[in-house]
Amino acid sequence: MSRISYLETHDLRFPTSRDLDGSDAMNADPDYSAAYVHLHTDAADGHVGSGFVFTIGRGNDVEVAAYAVLAPFLVGRDVEATLNDLGGFWRELVHDSQLRWLGPEKGVMHMAIGAVVNALWDLKAKRAGLPLWQVLARLSPEEIVDLVDFRYLSDALTREEALEILKSAEPGRADREARLLAEGYPAYTTTPGWLGYSDEKLVRLSREALEEGFTQIKLKVGGSVEDDIRRLRLARETVGPDIRIAIDANQRWDVDEAVAWIGELAEFDLAWVEEPTSPDDILGHAEIARRIAPVPVATGEHIANRVVFKQLLQARSLSYLQIDATRVAGVNENIAILLLAAKFGVPVCPHAGGVGLCEAVQHLSMFDFVAVSGTLAYRRIEYVDHLHEHFVTPVEIRGGNYVAPLAPGAGVDVWDDTFVNFEYPQGSAWRADDDSVVAAAG
Amino acid sequence: MSRISYLETHDLRFPTSRDLDGSDAMNADPDYSAAYVHLHTDAADGHVGSGFVFTIGRGNDVEVAAYAVLAPFLVGRDVEATLNDLGGFWRELVHDSQLRWLGPEKGVMHMAIGAVVNALWDLKAKRAGLPLWQVLARLSPEEIVDLVDFRYLSDALTREEALEILKSAEPGRADREARLLAEGYPAYTTTPGWLGYSDEKLVRLSREALEEGFTQIKLKVGGSVEDDIRRLRLARETVGPDIRIAIDANQRWDVDEAVAWIGELAEFDLAWVEEPTSPDDILGHAEIARRIAPVPVATGEHIANRVVFKQLLQARSLSYLQIDATRVAGVNENIAILLLAAKFGVPVCPHAGGVGLCEAVQHLSMFDFVAVSGTLAYRRIEYVDHLHEHFVTPVEIRGGNYVAPLAPGAGVDVWDDTFVNFEYPQGSAWRADDDSVVAAAG
Repeated sequence: MSRISYLETHDLRFPTSRDLDGSDAMNADPDYSAAYVHLHTDAADGHVGSGFVFTIGRGNDVEVAAYAVLAPFLVGRDVEATLNDLGGFWRELVHDSQLRWLGPEKGVMHMAIGAVVNALWDLKAKRAGLPLWQVLARLSPEEIVDLVDFRYLSDALTREEALEILKSAEPGRADREARLLAEGYPAYTTTPGWLGYSDEKLVRLSREALEEGFTQIKLKVGGSVEDDIRRLRLARETVGPDIRIAIDANQRWDVDEAVAWIGELAEFDLAWVEEPTSPDDILGHAEIARRIAPVPVATGEHIANRVVFKQLLQARSLSYLQIDATRVAGVNENIAILLLAAKFGVPVCPHAGGVGLCEAVQHLSMFDFVAVSGTLAYRRIEYVDHLHEHFVTPVEIRGGNYVAPLAPGAGVDVWDDTFVNFEYPQGSAWRADDDSVVAAAG
Repeated sequence: MSRISYLETHDLRFPTSRDLDGSDAMNADPDYSAAYVHLHTDAADGHVGSGFVFTIGRGNDVEVAAYAVLAPFLVGRDVEATLNDLGGFWRELVHDSQLRWLGPEKGVMHMAIGAVVNALWDLKAKRAGLPLWQVLARLSPEEIVDLVDFRYLSDALTREEALEILKSAEPGRADREARLLAEGYPAYTTTPGWLGYSDEKLVRLSREALEEGFTQIKLKVGGSVEDDIRRLRLARETVGPDIRIAIDANQRWDVDEAVAWIGELAEFDLAWVEEPTSPDDILGHAEIARRIAPVPVATGEHIANRVVFKQLLQARSLSYLQIDATRVAGVNENIAILLLAAKFGVPVCPHAGGVGLCEAVQHLSMFDFVAVSGTLAYRRIEYVDHLHEHFVTPVEIRGGNYVAPLAPGAGVDVWDDTFVNFEYPQGSAWRADDDSVVAAAG
């Protein structure tokens, strides 16, 4: 029997604010960051389970502090038994009677639990010698529903209904896996659209996106309506009428403001409007969706948990559901959300970008295609070409599609050098910012 | 000019799980805890601003870690200027472009911001030589709305509507303050009702509550329906037909389960059913409320922020709104919630108990009475007789009412000995748990 022997944690930050990569209406100067956790075991195979929470800088260390609180739940635990009951492990952590007071099921502690859950899935996939999406897609419908906590979901989705969805998708699994391996999974790109970019850079990157085969791009909006109109016009002129253009307001507006602002932009044939208002405002999203129809609403990257997603679906608040790999409590909760979306017939278009989010979330969409929704219709995974060079097995985009990864694991391991250079605050990338260190070195 | 000089923080925990004080259907073994923050200044007056986040044990240290991230926003700051623009300070912290990724506006980071906001209010009140409720109740309507962030609220409550509410309550302020000073503010008690207590203890404490003048008690439910029926029957027999009995399920149920379970208990003439399901489930609460009417629904202690409260009011999910002193981002956000409740005509009955929550939240209800809602009708503050001995100015209950506090400040300072004895893990109360320390001492 092997046991989890220790948790190694890292506060990894990239100084992206220096170039305004990732700038939008609410996030003026993000430093893309990842609070990493590595689960070591005493097994002879030497496999390490990797997980992380994506943040945008300050507070990344609070996630690291949360890992320390979770360590006693993990260290000494039987690896096999834990990996064979990840549904039970999820419930134990998420419903821990003391920890849940810090949420419940939201914020720093919930995301930290998500990272260790994801690290266990990474470990399980490495031990199986398969990419995570294949590990998931080869589970039986019964094994999949055992991973899901239906507490607070039963008024919208029961275990039996989830089982029905999974069973009806079972016959086509092999065909869809073959198609995925041959063609990949559709992507769209946000690379051209950051709010801090010049018009010239917007046009150049939009043209590149077109040339690379993307069929959808996304622009950040919400700074000023005049700028948004000018930028959308430039983008539409550049990509032509057949490429979809989505916009993303990053929670910038109140309800009436959103409706008025989007009205000014509707002429540009918008693929969707993303995060028009607070992620907590289920009823606000529903009202916006009603009033801007047929322009579709998309949201999800800041939705705290499955209970809020359930209501967004019940209230018809969204037309596209955007899961995030590190916001909710890991793979298990995202499976619950994929099942909810399938029940309501809403396509899932994951949030990605940041650091490692593309690498992580592609596995969930590929699993969704093979074993849950069974379709690629209206589905695209976000893609941004930032920071992939830090990953041992970075995502690969070909002709505007994510190539299905084949490396064992969840795909989120970073190079050792990345820790050397970007650990905060002692990494070389950050020491250059520190005058006292520079002075001492000089 | 004086400046904030440093943040002193403490991880304070009380081993309440040893006696099952505070036990309920979801919190089997809480160790009541408080992550304390003291704001020191270089002013000659020597006043220190105190704030805290209440937790129930594990993870209290993660709140302390969050304070460290907030320190750079505070240290070196002009005290006068900050205390004169607490609305601006609130916006700066809550909407910090990097920190908000950790919520936004929920969980560990949001509660930590609430504690430093509350510590600034404590400092402001101490400098004014007044209890916090009087400081707030003497602000002009314009000053009060300046404290509130109306972002994401404007579809339910605008700044102008809030001003109207406050202006119409202005004429009666002096009369109501006099009444409050003479009679106090109504309380109800949860002391008899913890799930871990024996029937004998339930009956004895219920009788004592009656003798002490309380007109409402609350029982924890949700373990088993048979136990709930037996305990409610004992309580009703003990207190008679005129005392209100509320029940609290602490988020135990799904929607259908809640409706069925409450149906079994309806014969006991319930004052309200508290937290029937997930605090995130606005639509679930609304459906439960519709189906169990006329039994009223109460919730709020785990509601993350004003945006969720807004929707609970919009959806008619609750009949009693329960604010909490340390869950949302402090006094400012609670003022927003009091204004929302006033707009919708829903009475506010604060959550209290734990450690320090009674001391803190009474100020908000008293301010509400004097300057916002202008009424005591249907309003009671929760009271539990735990851990008040640790406070320098503990709450005083007389004839079932909270006596209006007159000591300057927010009332949450604890004795120095409390830190000596209950700081985790080095306090004497915790060292007794540690075999290695006991062995070494022996």
